Amino acid sequence: MISVAILGHGVVGSGVAEVLLDNADTIARNAGDSLVVKRILDLRSFPDLPYADLFTTDFDTIVQDEEIRIVVETMGGLHPAYDFVKACLLVGKSVVTSNKELVAAKGDELLSIAKEQNVNFLFEASVGGGIPILRPLSQCLAGNEIESVAGILNGTTNFMLTRMVQDGMDFGSALALAQQLGYAERDPSADVDGHDACRKICILAALAYGKHVYPEQVYTEGISAITPADVRYAEAIGRVIKLIGQVKRQGDRIQCMVSPLLIPTDNLLAQVSDVFNAVQVCGNAVGEVLFYGRGAGKLPTASAVVGDVVDAAQHLTVRKPLFWAGGSADYVLDHADNACATLLRFETDDKQALLSRLQSAVGEIAVVTCPQASTNELAVVTAVMSECELDNGLAVLGEQPVSRLRLL
Amino acid sequence: MISVAILGHGVVGSGVAEVLLDNADTIARNAGDSLVVKRILDLRSFPDLPYADLFTTDFDTIVQDEEIRIVVETMGGLHPAYDFVKACLLVGKSVVTSNKELVAAKGDELLSIAKEQNVNFLFEASVGGGIPILRPLSQCLAGNEIESVAGILNGTTNFMLTRMVQDGMDFGSALALAQQLGYAERDPSADVDGHDACRKICILAALAYGKHVYPEQVYTEGISAITPADVRYAEAIGRVIKLIGQVKRQGDRIQCMVSPLLIPTDNLLAQVSDVFNAVQVCGNAVGEVLFYGRGAGKLPTASAVVGDVVDAAQHLTVRKPLFWAGGSADYVLDHADNACATLLRFETDDKQALLSRLQSAVGEIAVVTCPQASTNELAVVTAVMSECELDNGLAVLGEQPVSRLRLL
Repeated sequence: MISVAILGHGVVGSGVAEVLLDNADTIARNAGDSLVVKRILDLRSFPDLPYADLFTTDFDTIVQDEEIRIVVETMGGLHPAYDFVKACLLVGKSVVTSNKELVAAKGDELLSIAKEQNVNFLFEASVGGGIPILRPLSQCLAGNEIESVAGILNGTTNFMLTRMVQDGMDFGSALALAQQLGYAERDPSADVDGHDACRKICILAALAYGKHVYPEQVYTEGISAITPADVRYAEAIGRVIKLIGQVKRQGDRIQCMVSPLLIPTDNLLAQVSDVFNAVQVCGNAVGEVLFYGRGAGKLPTASAVVGDVVDAAQHLTVRKPLFWAGGSADYVLDHADNACATLLRFETDDKQALLSRLQSAVGEIAVVTCPQASTNELAVVTAVMSECELDNGLAVLGEQPVSRLRLL
Repeated sequence: MISVAILGHGVVGSGVAEVLLDNADTIARNAGDSLVVKRILDLRSFPDLPYADLFTTDFDTIVQDEEIRIVVETMGGLHPAYDFVKACLLVGKSVVTSNKELVAAKGDELLSIAKEQNVNFLFEASVGGGIPILRPLSQCLAGNEIESVAGILNGTTNFMLTRMVQDGMDFGSALALAQQLGYAERDPSADVDGHDACRKICILAALAYGKHVYPEQVYTEGISAITPADVRYAEAIGRVIKLIGQVKRQGDRIQCMVSPLLIPTDNLLAQVSDVFNAVQVCGNAVGEVLFYGRGAGKLPTASAVVGDVVDAAQHLTVRKPLFWAGGSADYVLDHADNACATLLRFETDDKQALLSRLQSAVGEIAVVTCPQASTNELAVVTAVMSECELDNGLAVLGEQPVSRLRLL
């Protein structure tokens, strides 16, 4: 019997308790031993639960209990989660977390402590909810040089974009619906401004390339500026707008960003609808692989946490070789050097004149026509060029587009 | 430094040697030690290769070499692969194989020997080529009761069906094209008759439910009877024909089969085109997850093999808890008890009469109309019923359909 503690009995923590209880037999068979929840830390009490007697408000009773070998952290946020996780690792307990904010900010330090203490620090649930992605990336694809990772990493924004594409909603209505259905918070900025996706691509980048990437190093753009006209223009060029976190290797450095991107409809990422997430990995041997499923929610996230708990139980005395080095200031390429083709949309009374000025300012461009567009709109797709080159071109033009959308 | 041997320098074996050489630095970082190919067994010699001096035709030089800790088997077929793998495990070497025929026939016995010898027997490459699927299923989803697994497990037949759907080809032309492109063998029966997919669903079923399933226990139907008319009728009801291997738990037993199935177009499996494979897993916590990528080919398959080699290198002294029990005669439900809805197509001069006879013989049915159908065709979809019930109904009717296709 292996004793487990859970820090935080919110949506995910209660799901973890539920899965450990409901699937106890299967889990014991897979782990090679039974897993028993001994303590749950929460400031609230839950007198009606069958396991009401497990609750404590005192972290010390957990960290000082030598019988507890595995601690699950599902509190979220940086503090006190960071302090608790660090304390548990330092006394030789393995820790499993679903907390992407913690891993994106402190993953390198916590992995380093886990290595020193010869225990495991696992966080499959921090990216893609229930989708197995971190373990496949670090283990199954260990024979590959990873060329790129690109994913739909936030279910809330993918739900909203799906409604905007399929039902013609504008951003405000899609947000209101997401809030009404409980997919978006009252303050939706972590989702709609891309910060949640940013933390997740930082974790994927660190695993893929062995070096920590801090969220503040990553250019991050959300979906709040996307309009129904953008959706229609995307459709006109056979593409769909998705909020994508992506990372690519560039020599010894990486290119990493979060941004709405125009995805070709025949790319599987374009087919990922509603709250589903998907991550596409390109390796130099395997080619393209894709992982798809529910990126959030109580039981899907608990599934990933419990998978890690089983792994930790199987490896109580052997550390799994999961590790990455600390980050560095110049490791992530400046956003000005990120290169892509871009869809630009202008309002003008003289399209022909603007078109020829555009050609001399930004070089080769392709004009895009969209059936429902107003007559004073000019839309073009540029060649692949860096953000900086495009900025310079637009400065020469002396005019800014009403919309600027990158192509995958 | 860890010494590795490769048995069989064919498509996959040469890919493994190539990946181990080309990605040596990344692999050493991931494995925590460098991996060096010491011997390659093949009856042929390859004098022009940079590693020509590694070849041997004598298996004993490998099995007796105590320095070789990991053996890769990429010969294919049952013999001598089985004998060689068993001999290597028995002297305490870990074995990694891509050989689905071997794992489907002898997996339980070889896992049992590996357990006794405290070594690892790994076979990620045996299902889905480069797609990480076996490790995610057994590790990441270890907290779930697996409800079902369904997959497009054979790239050759998926390529052929894609051509039949997208280009209107018939079976013969699609097969000829697949052979011309090197996707299908001159004798294509292992692919088109479903035997290859059957071996793979047996391996997935054994991993998901902990008990060996032998290919001869699984009802297996290929795609050679699929006609352009079937493709058009599928389209008429918003579905696509795919060759699917699937397994579901039914109490203490399982339902398992390989068959062409009509997949709704909004199911991601319907979007999996050409030689790509995909496996969909439903767990009681995670819901639906899907794994997608190249199911065959030199480097994708080598990617999966090398991922296992890295894992074996990390676990030279600790056996991974991968195991399933031997099978039993009554474990797989009889095909007569498999239940689904079915699309039936008849030729008749009197549709109205046949329709009312059908209704009394097989119960509630929905009539399907297809724009390009000939006027003497009647197509209907039945309610969900067992194969046996449908067979009995058709016997009462006294008439067999020209086509009978199951719905997912």
